[in-house]
Amino acid sequence: MSPINLAIVGVGKIVRDQHLPSIAKNPNFELVATASRHGTVEGINSYTTIEAMLDAEPSIDAVSLCMPPQYRYEAAYKALVAGKHVFLEKPPGATLSEVADLEALANKQGASLFASWHSRYAPAVEAAKAFLASTTIKSVHVIWKEDVRHWHPNQEWIWQAGGLGVFDPGINALSIVTHILPRQVFITGAVLEFPENRDAPIAADIHFRDADGLPVHAEFDWRQTGKQSWDIVAETAAGQMVLSEGGAKLSIDGTLTFAEPEQEYPSLYRRFAEIIKAGKSDVDLAPLRHVADAFMLGKRKFVDAFHD
Amino acid sequence: MSPINLAIVGVGKIVRDQHLPSIAKNPNFELVATASRHGTVEGINSYTTIEAMLDAEPSIDAVSLCMPPQYRYEAAYKALVAGKHVFLEKPPGATLSEVADLEALANKQGASLFASWHSRYAPAVEAAKAFLASTTIKSVHVIWKEDVRHWHPNQEWIWQAGGLGVFDPGINALSIVTHILPRQVFITGAVLEFPENRDAPIAADIHFRDADGLPVHAEFDWRQTGKQSWDIVAETAAGQMVLSEGGAKLSIDGTLTFAEPEQEYPSLYRRFAEIIKAGKSDVDLAPLRHVADAFMLGKRKFVDAFHD
Repeated sequence: MSPINLAIVGVGKIVRDQHLPSIAKNPNFELVATASRHGTVEGINSYTTIEAMLDAEPSIDAVSLCMPPQYRYEAAYKALVAGKHVFLEKPPGATLSEVADLEALANKQGASLFASWHSRYAPAVEAAKAFLASTTIKSVHVIWKEDVRHWHPNQEWIWQAGGLGVFDPGINALSIVTHILPRQVFITGAVLEFPENRDAPIAADIHFRDADGLPVHAEFDWRQTGKQSWDIVAETAAGQMVLSEGGAKLSIDGTLTFAEPEQEYPSLYRRFAEIIKAGKSDVDLAPLRHVADAFMLGKRKFVDAFHD
Repeated sequence: MSPINLAIVGVGKIVRDQHLPSIAKNPNFELVATASRHGTVEGINSYTTIEAMLDAEPSIDAVSLCMPPQYRYEAAYKALVAGKHVFLEKPPGATLSEVADLEALANKQGASLFASWHSRYAPAVEAAKAFLASTTIKSVHVIWKEDVRHWHPNQEWIWQAGGLGVFDPGINALSIVTHILPRQVFITGAVLEFPENRDAPIAADIHFRDADGLPVHAEFDWRQTGKQSWDIVAETAAGQMVLSEGGAKLSIDGTLTFAEPEQEYPSLYRRFAEIIKAGKSDVDLAPLRHVADAFMLGKRKFVDAFHD
């Protein structure tokens, strides 16, 4: 088929680092326009609002929405009403309800909505899922600890109410956990640590279980200096599984069994082309639902102020 | 058909005030057993745990779960695995994920799961829905203000993390709003007020909108002494609609157009019998989803300590 004419809304760091190289390498897509308050892409028609872009560029088939989640609904709604397919960067919205609303609209419009979870496409995730399906799991420990000053320097929106705080990286862990475990889990208790000068948590300690009583413990922390940790460890009847480096590497009892180069965003665009071709949507709200559950159920604790 | 043999788990105030009289008047049900740590019902076999009750009383067809939401999943799971139909008092659980899990289990077991929202069965709710469907709505204002010391004296669980605080009554308003409005709404901003000595909010101020931009403003407050307010006010092209007293009365431009005696719990048990007969479930998570969204998106504010 002829390429899908794609537009990007919200040109920032993630777009330059991940979206643009992935789109450039994928023959299914042709980037035709961008809309962003400040960012532009050299050689591509640029607009400052999505309305102006949709008006001026009727050839657009699909849009990727990469602005902060607080502003995503409005743009997604306008794009879907205009009959465009929509790729939502993670998290897919500021609330569960607005994403449910967009999903219903996409179905009505016959457009494809993709709520993307990039970490699910990390190299070793499918191998981890297959391993866990082949054995009995005794417990799971998720350790997701990174240095927010390094990864999100001066990004004010992540600290605002609705910006999710440490759940911004933590939701990546949750997107993997919900994909690789054999049964759904649910939260039984959580403690969320809020810096006294911020509206979003800097750390979270969460206990889950599934219907069979499998204990799952997740620790998210944004104050980690030195070595960064993005690990999922499962104790199983067939040994200890370690899915490390955000899903890049898989080890069983200390032996590396799977490692391939990272291909997350190229995989996301392959998936987006696939669902557009198939005329369907891909919207799994489980990771965001766990975050909302953690905020609803969790105990709040106040810790030292955080300054960038 | 012969009566449905019913058991109640968690015998407290709401059971004595509402469930028992409603069950006694409904020929579709026969109360055969209770399980509760402390409460019993005169003349009915009583047990201290649901496990002991299910073991000893194989004739049970259905159970009503009326304990605090933090403990509901475990009991619902056991009942569904035993093939019993399950009635969940509101809110249906401590997390959205656990209720989604129960719904999947009920479908698998061929049992009926009823996530009940008693306020949806308030007398004037259907009349309000019909009125709103007949006109154009300009704005909606929800005022749900009551005295927690009067309605929940010394109920510690409502103040614990996961106890929902002022959302315990507020979710009743949300269950009505989500039922009577023509389109789904979603939260755009919220402020939650936490007493400095409690883990659950005592007040919440929430702004919603729908896809057409309809503004919906909800104020929940547990510090209201004197006159209590459970009102939903809609400004419409056909005048001002006031659904008052928790859904009991409907007025248009000051003229009372609908008022009938309260029949919420009798209606809930009629509905429960109906879905059991039809072999289906009735699980609408929208009210709880809005509460989770409010906790996730809302700004936290600290207010004076609360003492019972």
